[in-house]
Amino acid sequence: MKYPGGIKKIKTISNISYKNRGMSLENDLNDTNDYYRDIDKAYIYKKPTPIKITKVDYPSRDKTVIKEAFFTIPSTTDYNGLYKGKYIDFEAKETKSKSSFPLANIHPHQIEHIRNIFNHEGIVFLIVRFTTLNKTFLLLGKDFLEYIDNNTRKSIPINYFEDKAYLIKDNYNPRVDYLKIIDNIIGGK
Amino acid sequence: MKYPGGIKKIKTISNISYKNRGMSLENDLNDTNDYYRDIDKAYIYKKPTPIKITKVDYPSRDKTVIKEAFFTIPSTTDYNGLYKGKYIDFEAKETKSKSSFPLANIHPHQIEHIRNIFNHEGIVFLIVRFTTLNKTFLLLGKDFLEYIDNNTRKSIPINYFEDKAYLIKDNYNPRVDYLKIIDNIIGGK
Repeated sequence: MKYPGGIKKIKTISNISYKNRGMSLENDLNDTNDYYRDIDKAYIYKKPTPIKITKVDYPSRDKTVIKEAFFTIPSTTDYNGLYKGKYIDFEAKETKSKSSFPLANIHPHQIEHIRNIFNHEGIVFLIVRFTTLNKTFLLLGKDFLEYIDNNTRKSIPINYFEDKAYLIKDNYNPRVDYLKIIDNIIGGK
Repeated sequence: MKYPGGIKKIKTISNISYKNRGMSLENDLNDTNDYYRDIDKAYIYKKPTPIKITKVDYPSRDKTVIKEAFFTIPSTTDYNGLYKGKYIDFEAKETKSKSSFPLANIHPHQIEHIRNIFNHEGIVFLIVRFTTLNKTFLLLGKDFLEYIDNNTRKSIPINYFEDKAYLIKDNYNPRVDYLKIIDNIIGGK
């Protein structure tokens, strides 16, 4: 991607720090998904960040520059794709908490999306990293929804993860080998 | 989505006209996918347009304004999701040509993506509308790849569509009932 002459690249998205955005887990997952594609194992992508564009410029015929836009609330999870003919769908979040995962991290639309995917036989889950504890869990959509539907707490306690979720072991390559856990669940090689 | 006070909404993305972007087919497909979700039939979404953000402002603690960004080339198709437990993936394009569909409309990365999805048993296809002819076709990934792999032409002639693709009949609701064709192919209800 080339930038038009004279326009200075001031900040790139990867240098911006966001509340609850979990860039480091995101980077690990991007590397992992790249790895899965490289070895022709799975085709799972992070969706582009949804934005609402409100102002554009056309400095030349072939160039469009967005001059004003805003981040919008996503209506689906961030990651989806294909593995062994199956539809895979997940959301990834980090928390600094040692005791629980705050549900404010997941938008109501996303919860509905997870429910819809679960009901229609997609493989849907959360990957939650407790950064302070250095633990990354895969919590199946089924167990996530079971908690949501039977509790009024605004967070999921860590012991629910210890009990119901799958711990994803640290790994060199791929960084976060979540398909290993999916293999065990769906019974693959 | 609220805009910060004083910022005037000058243009929205839906009012911007793009070369080969096919906004009208896109609108029909968005309506169709909304309809499928409303009747709990399928969960298929258009991915957000990928952009590269190069400059942001933080006018207040909770507000981030993108001040400069560029459209980037997508590495996947625009639409994917879940139908009857199956992974669905497609690209949609319009052409004004009466005689052929120009392959310049599909980026090389997208062709590779279509091949990968086909190889891994996803349901992958193109929806191509010949606007002048007012005909909308569904061309399966298999038949698209067969053409690409066996021809050096830079476009797919209309008779290949007439021969191999499925004509999607005009409809009121949903506008473009492509899952009807998928049903016939996978043998659903």
